Amino acid sequence: MKQFLSISDIPDLPQAIRQVIELKQNPLSNPLIGQGKRMAMVFFNPSLRTRCSTQIAAENLGLKTFTLDVGSQTWPIEFRLNTIMDGKSSEHIKEATMVLSSYFDLIAVRSFPTLKKKEQDLSEFILNSFHQHATVPVINMESATQHPLQSFADAITIKETQITKPKIVLSWTPHPKAIPHSVANSFVEMCRFADYDCVITNPPDYDLNPEITKGIPVIHQQEKAFENADIIYAKNWSSFQHYGQVFKHHREWIINQKKIDLTNHAKFMHCLPVRRNVVVSDEVLDSENSLIQQQVENRVFSAQYVIKKILDHVSS
Amino acid sequence: MKQFLSISDIPDLPQAIRQVIELKQNPLSNPLIGQGKRMAMVFFNPSLRTRCSTQIAAENLGLKTFTLDVGSQTWPIEFRLNTIMDGKSSEHIKEATMVLSSYFDLIAVRSFPTLKKKEQDLSEFILNSFHQHATVPVINMESATQHPLQSFADAITIKETQITKPKIVLSWTPHPKAIPHSVANSFVEMCRFADYDCVITNPPDYDLNPEITKGIPVIHQQEKAFENADIIYAKNWSSFQHYGQVFKHHREWIINQKKIDLTNHAKFMHCLPVRRNVVVSDEVLDSENSLIQQQVENRVFSAQYVIKKILDHVSS
Amino acid sequence: MKQFLSISDIPDLPQAIRQVIELKQNPLSNPLIGQGKRMAMVFFNPSLRTRCSTQIAAENLGLKTFTLDVGSQTWPIEFRLNTIMDGKSSEHIKEATMVLSSYFDLIAVRSFPTLKKKEQDLSEFILNSFHQHATVPVINMESATQHPLQSFADAITIKETQITKPKIVLSWTPHPKAIPHSVANSFVEMCRFADYDCVITNPPDYDLNPEITKGIPVIHQQEKAFENADIIYAKNWSSFQHYGQVFKHHREWIINQKKIDLTNHAKFMHCLPVRRNVVVSDEVLDSENSLIQQQVENRVFSAQYVIKKILDHVSS
Repeated sequence: MKQFLSISDIPDLPQAIRQVIELKQNPLSNPLIGQGKRMAMVFFNPSLRTRCSTQIAAENLGLKTFTLDVGSQTWPIEFRLNTIMDGKSSEHIKEATMVLSSYFDLIAVRSFPTLKKKEQDLSEFILNSFHQHATVPVINMESATQHPLQSFADAITIKETQITKPKIVLSWTPHPKAIPHSVANSFVEMCRFADYDCVITNPPDYDLNPEITKGIPVIHQQEKAFENADIIYAKNWSSFQHYGQVFKHHREWIINQKKIDLTNHAKFMHCLPVRRNVVVSDEVLDSENSLIQQQVENRVFSAQYVIKKILDHVSS
Repeated sequence: MKQFLSISDIPDLPQAIRQVIELKQNPLSNPLIGQGKRMAMVFFNPSLRTRCSTQIAAENLGLKTFTLDVGSQTWPIEFRLNTIMDGKSSEHIKEATMVLSSYFDLIAVRSFPTLKKKEQDLSEFILNSFHQHATVPVINMESATQHPLQSFADAITIKETQITKPKIVLSWTPHPKAIPHSVANSFVEMCRFADYDCVITNPPDYDLNPEITKGIPVIHQQEKAFENADIIYAKNWSSFQHYGQVFKHHREWIINQKKIDLTNHAKFMHCLPVRRNVVVSDEVLDSENSLIQQQVENRVFSAQYVIKKILDHVSS
Repeated sequence: MKQFLSISDIPDLPQAIRQVIELKQNPLSNPLIGQGKRMAMVFFNPSLRTRCSTQIAAENLGLKTFTLDVGSQTWPIEFRLNTIMDGKSSEHIKEATMVLSSYFDLIAVRSFPTLKKKEQDLSEFILNSFHQHATVPVINMESATQHPLQSFADAITIKETQITKPKIVLSWTPHPKAIPHSVANSFVEMCRFADYDCVITNPPDYDLNPEITKGIPVIHQQEKAFENADIIYAKNWSSFQHYGQVFKHHREWIINQKKIDLTNHAKFMHCLPVRRNVVVSDEVLDSENSLIQQQVENRVFSAQYVIKKILDHVSS
């Protein structure tokens, strides 16, 4: 693997899923592969799960990690070419990535969307600028439109349910704030590459980017979508058409037991953090069918697989 | 030791003190006991001494530490059960501790009191929520009402004076700001468990929580309390009755040489940081009788003992 | 080396430069010299390059590093002696350095000038307070008036050009903000100790501290200074006479190809971060004659040399 910007960077996802499940049996079996190597973890936005799991993954392989909390304000980088830098930006992305590429063997980047400038977000402005100018591999720790480390972990969790050909429903849920599309987008992309059957359900105003969902059924009645579902993946996202807006809260889209009763005893998944009794009721989240802890645990192993494959590529 | 929430979690304090004094001779004698293990250090409030000493202690045992500066604002956690999370809190303590318990073998927490909501502070709301929901041991790095790692270090420092049955005076001192009761509370509790003779002196309006001080003499005239003292432990705290208030500064309660002259050549102790010439005069703090550097050094060894005993318990 | 406060702490700079060029061949040849030792990296101001390179240098030697982002506001230290600390400062430099000296074997400090209080900046108030009170060696990671780790790296980069007796021009460049004198000062000092021929060029109002530049030609016409130059070192600084002011921007002082054409095919150097098309044009910065990446890489090796020499001294 040359880099990990999106789930499509994994050449054979079903095989990769099987390999991670093997890796989990013995996560410390490659403690030296990263020895003497360093990974920069650049955070433009805060992170708890991704930071911890990615760092643990790297250290399981013997890498040293350096966390750079640059903030969206505190390291004003100029991304445009041929510009006169007499404004707020004190460093150009060319030099920023040159410095990081000099000091580190891998650069992992987290950078959320603006949810205001649609074209800029869709172009993956920040992630792609890092990728374009860096001379070492770049890893996406959640970008404007994707969160592939999460979706790879989810792919593993789904496989571990051992359900044969599960019917998976990605369900929009209520949320008081405007939330990015990245987790939902990467989940849909992951289902396509893993050959998982996926259906999306959301209120009419909340259709995801049609270029990403093309070929995937989108059902605007949640209860109908839940019929015979084996797995419910809950996630909020803001409007794509009315970009970044939250114009109606649709509280009735909460996942509760009554809705789970419509399914085939469906497992419940969510990437966390989750707002209890807004996104999902306590009874569902605390039930035996909830897979959230497994999802959390698999974040380490999916990241470890990605880092290992990139190091393999670098040294080959 | 299953956890370390308060000084009473050490089953036999006099024995533990002797064991730490032995440990100090060779602090790197157990470099592998924590190998492959990780400790999360969660800071809701800033820390210098506690952060450095606890991290060094953990690394002396081979543990890896992860510092999570969550801030009291930046990680708005919901602690109440059965609540609809449509406000500021984006994550529930149940999920927060589940995630930390998945990724770490130990969770150390620092969280100061509100000094406004007395009942909430006294219930040790945050520390106990972590303890209740985590599935791995929790270590108190200073909570709403206690600072047991400090008091354990102080117990060792007192033992190292080699004074037989010292008379110890915990003296309130002036301070311009409202300060928690945690160090004073844990000091009193430590003296009880270590079988040290302790007297408290403070202005009448500054009596500590009577449930903690019961059985310990409280003297409202500082000079009388200092007679025959072998050790003066200086500390400010805000009012407990008029909870969290600083209604009178009592500048005359400063510890200076004139007051030390009333004692039995008393040693001087303070947990730092200390405001010079407000809490204590330069002459006393800089004198040979000041034990502050020993107190600082013993913070490493007390933390190392606690972590080791918890790891021993986990693997037994 | 007992400490590293300024470039003059390197006893024989030409010899040190040769030794670093050897060290670069095998930077991991001393992985155990720092084992069991710890370095505190105290940042009163933000840092990217210095933080990464110094930390990598320390870890190449087996040291553990602890980053303390104290901020210029968040750790209000009292530096004055004999003062009554009833204001904002909660800790005195005496205790702060005592604590750090207890826990660490080396203390590295970064602290920028006020650019307002000239006498205080010139006295190196913060750096010298650390040096004076600490009982372990102190390393300057950029102070009020100096940045010797940068200049040492620059000395190595100049040597690596293999130009015999290069004519070096330190050229003032435009910048929208008030910038410290530290890089320029240390560069001039470094040239003196390395026996490099250096000429300074800047607008008349921007002469550096004459005590530092004495004996070095200062030319107020940039184009004249550039004649026959082999190396152009670009750097902005605010006024020294009208202390800390930027009263005229002199946009015409930008380094562009037309000016490089006046030189002897000069190499271009800058310490970064650099404002493109304000300080230097894209064409020059992106040309083959630009040495900025080598300067970045040499930051690791210069820091590693300094730390190693200090550890050698401590253990001798």
